[in-house]
Amino acid sequence: MPRPRQFDEQRVLSAVQATFWDNGYAGTSLDDLLSATGLGKGSLYGAFGDKQRLFLRVLREYDEANDRMLRTWLEDADRGIEVIRSFVTAPVRDPSGEQARRGCLLANTAMELSTNAAEVAAEARRSYTATTAVLADAVRRAQLEGDLAPHADPDEIARAVLAGQLGLIVLGRIGQDPAVLSAVADTLLDGLLPAT
Amino acid sequence: MPRPRQFDEQRVLSAVQATFWDNGYAGTSLDDLLSATGLGKGSLYGAFGDKQRLFLRVLREYDEANDRMLRTWLEDADRGIEVIRSFVTAPVRDPSGEQARRGCLLANTAMELSTNAAEVAAEARRSYTATTAVLADAVRRAQLEGDLAPHADPDEIARAVLAGQLGLIVLGRIGQDPAVLSAVADTLLDGLLPAT
Repeated sequence: MPRPRQFDEQRVLSAVQATFWDNGYAGTSLDDLLSATGLGKGSLYGAFGDKQRLFLRVLREYDEANDRMLRTWLEDADRGIEVIRSFVTAPVRDPSGEQARRGCLLANTAMELSTNAAEVAAEARRSYTATTAVLADAVRRAQLEGDLAPHADPDEIARAVLAGQLGLIVLGRIGQDPAVLSAVADTLLDGLLPAT
Repeated sequence: MPRPRQFDEQRVLSAVQATFWDNGYAGTSLDDLLSATGLGKGSLYGAFGDKQRLFLRVLREYDEANDRMLRTWLEDADRGIEVIRSFVTAPVRDPSGEQARRGCLLANTAMELSTNAAEVAAEARRSYTATTAVLADAVRRAQLEGDLAPHADPDEIARAVLAGQLGLIVLGRIGQDPAVLSAVADTLLDGLLPAT
């Protein structure tokens, strides 16, 4: 019979996620993970597999939490267009720019890794497809609500909005002035959301 | 008197650049650099400084070459708007998607590194400011040539175009279908370049 785990799984995974997010995948050593979690190698790898398994696990949980959050935004929003606006401005909402400099675990590590990491690239495609689907639903709702031109293609708009948001994440990551980022977000939204 | 260098500096720097581009900064070991260049540690670090110095050197050369290329595009183009279109479609021009999957040395490593690497972030801001300046010049020319709405703010358009292009680079890096990327580029251009 396996011994019961002596640690709180969610606490350990949160610490692992924060470590990968701050240091990148290649920049995170086993020692970093052990010191962040307070576990020994045997306990950590025994419970979750090696560094790559552990990374994919926290990346998937991060992506799924983001997907759920976006879906909930859409369910709770008064109007569909608010969800699209919130999605684009999300990376630039912290006036200190600190959150923007941290970027996004998915985008950061996709840029770092995907040439040589088929599983990360596949996970990123899956996650961005899910995001695009929610954004396209928001576009359809905004069209029904009269806030967006009815002739615009929801999937095309959703993909361009995602691209714009990812570009903002890159610019936030390099410490671009948050006020400039906000202005860029507004220009993207004005250009990509054709009014009725 | 120092001994004359026994190697071709540009060949060595090209090999170093390709290694960082393919593997990322943290993912590139000293051994990777020695095997790519065929040099010993003493020769390589003696000539260029340590890994970080070497990286910043090739990153700056890469950025400067891109700046020069964009400026030359604008000088040689028949119309300003062509330069903006070429800039946005550049990351998706290879129909195999291979170039898109390689991404951009600057964007890839900025995403990987900038939280903890002030010099990389500063270099990225410098380079993106230079890019925005050329794009804004292209917008002004397109306005004079009657291809772009005269009321649009050239700096705002330039920044949004850069953000859109960076988003395309992220999507290309994760292996998004090149045909989809091309369609996204078109949607971004249609939205961000208001016709007269």
